[in-house]
Amino acid sequence: MRDQNYAAAKPTQIRLTRRSPEYWRVTIDHPPLNIFGPEMLPQVNEIITAIETDEQVKVVVLDSAVEGFFLIHLDFLARLDDLAHLPAGPSGLHPWPEMLVRLSRSPVVSIVLIRGRATGMGSELALACDMRFASREKAILSQFEVGAGLVPGGGPMARLSRLMGRGRALEVILSADDIPGDLAERYGYVNRSLPDADLDGFVDALATRIASFDKREISRDSLGAEDL
Amino acid sequence: MRDQNYAAAKPTQIRLTRRSPEYWRVTIDHPPLNIFGPEMLPQVNEIITAIETDEQVKVVVLDSAVEGFFLIHLDFLARLDDLAHLPAGPSGLHPWPEMLVRLSRSPVVSIVLIRGRATGMGSELALACDMRFASREKAILSQFEVGAGLVPGGGPMARLSRLMGRGRALEVILSADDIPGDLAERYGYVNRSLPDADLDGFVDALATRIASFDKREISRDSLGAEDL
Amino acid sequence: MRDQNYAAAKPTQIRLTRRSPEYWRVTIDHPPLNIFGPEMLPQVNEIITAIETDEQVKVVVLDSAVEGFFLIHLDFLARLDDLAHLPAGPSGLHPWPEMLVRLSRSPVVSIVLIRGRATGMGSELALACDMRFASREKAILSQFEVGAGLVPGGGPMARLSRLMGRGRALEVILSADDIPGDLAERYGYVNRSLPDADLDGFVDALATRIASFDKREISRDSLGAEDL
Repeated sequence: MRDQNYAAAKPTQIRLTRRSPEYWRVTIDHPPLNIFGPEMLPQVNEIITAIETDEQVKVVVLDSAVEGFFLIHLDFLARLDDLAHLPAGPSGLHPWPEMLVRLSRSPVVSIVLIRGRATGMGSELALACDMRFASREKAILSQFEVGAGLVPGGGPMARLSRLMGRGRALEVILSADDIPGDLAERYGYVNRSLPDADLDGFVDALATRIASFDKREISRDSLGAEDL
Repeated sequence: MRDQNYAAAKPTQIRLTRRSPEYWRVTIDHPPLNIFGPEMLPQVNEIITAIETDEQVKVVVLDSAVEGFFLIHLDFLARLDDLAHLPAGPSGLHPWPEMLVRLSRSPVVSIVLIRGRATGMGSELALACDMRFASREKAILSQFEVGAGLVPGGGPMARLSRLMGRGRALEVILSADDIPGDLAERYGYVNRSLPDADLDGFVDALATRIASFDKREISRDSLGAEDL
Repeated sequence: MRDQNYAAAKPTQIRLTRRSPEYWRVTIDHPPLNIFGPEMLPQVNEIITAIETDEQVKVVVLDSAVEGFFLIHLDFLARLDDLAHLPAGPSGLHPWPEMLVRLSRSPVVSIVLIRGRATGMGSELALACDMRFASREKAILSQFEVGAGLVPGGGPMARLSRLMGRGRALEVILSADDIPGDLAERYGYVNRSLPDADLDGFVDALATRIASFDKREISRDSLGAEDL
């Protein structure tokens, strides 16, 4: 399933759609598995720059166009080295956690719609966003890294711990196991898991609603949410 | 429903009842809607002073005498100005958050019984108390402010975030939407939502039980709970 | 049921079993009630020393061999004085909270299997471990101390507050009431409550799985979990 020329053949793997000037969608479209690879980083960073500098956008929904997968971890056997050798970003952090921090601090409201597998970096991307909604039947989240002899690189311990408490966060990371939609909701890994048939409508209605509010009032600064 | 002379005609909108020297009830009784208005602040502060200085009281239950409403937000179209121009309290804070901080730090155990709508300042009052119990069928909580172009003034982001995590707290505040009893329990917005028929009995039994314990052991200082 | 000579007659109340070099079990076996007494402290500390110094152990499961009881509080009427007069440990803390801190910081993953009552110090021991799994039908947790005119000595307010938020933590401590398995899960007091028939298999599979991972990756230091 891996094809070293795949990125070259289809360079745009992350698609930005403006549903309205205030409400954007970012769709991961890298079939067949939506595997995160080093070539995605510049694409994501470019979109974040657009979000940071646009004066109208208020809400961004992240989703996937690939059946069964939201975003899964780097194909680390083949390409871990490529990612490890990427140059550090402007902050001096490795470019992956740096991108997550930029996303967390961006002035828009970020909402993740999870259908299919969100594992490793896919889970970390979801955790860096403001809210997460999942398909009860089709979502699977995991931080599988420890089971593969790796340490998660995108800071999930701190984020999971604040969402679900230390005990459940340690279980998610140390069991390195799949967390299906309903357990993800009970643990607070996602805001809610909805029946798959209702998920798109729910997220779209929420995004549309928030996009109708004043941009200033929804900023994390006004809410004192920056450091929470 | 607004009547500028209403406060004068019925000055006592918040009623203090001593069920026993150790167990008090504070009942909001401002029909037809239990709208919070500037004239309520001195009444609440007077009650908090009584609580702070009484040597016997251990537990205070806050509830409502008005069907369908716990406490709803200031009628901001007409009276926002009145509230905004209230003089600052002794701490230098605006009198509303100052009152909430006094309540949070008061030496008694404060329990909120929510039946009907607790929105905006009503939600903030509930969040400033120690515990919250809601009617599964009849409670509705919300921080609707962002939807009305306002920023919540009583610090709900920090309190909600510690109760339910950042993702759900942002959803409550940014969706500005109604949260019914069962979702409020799943999110940790309230301790529990009980069947409406059981709510009064449950809260009364809990308050009576705590009121039978030693005043010293139930203080937040002894428990190290002051800063949590 | 109390017998001052019981400890002498059956000195080993806490049993260490090595299922494999990587996976150990610590079993509390002090019938008929698994009451914690001062004589247990040196036994627990000896086991923690073995855990801290062993180079292979990765996972420790704590459970009970006594039907109906995980670990219950010191028989305080008779022996509170014995415990209060124990010499302070090396850190200067009272030996009970010192032992809990050692356990929390130990380099292994600690998992508690709760069947029966875990009250007072039994609850505090469970809270000091990394994860907690309970029998839905047979587990009962409580911090009953406030109801007996005592203040909990093992720091449950801070740990409970981070697991379930301040409101529910205050309810657990101030109600001083029994929390059965299902409520314990809803509140986050335990990771999950499982049907009693599934509990042993679930915990054993989880422990075996984690014990198969690299020791370095599962350390709290690598995960940045030390201070969470």
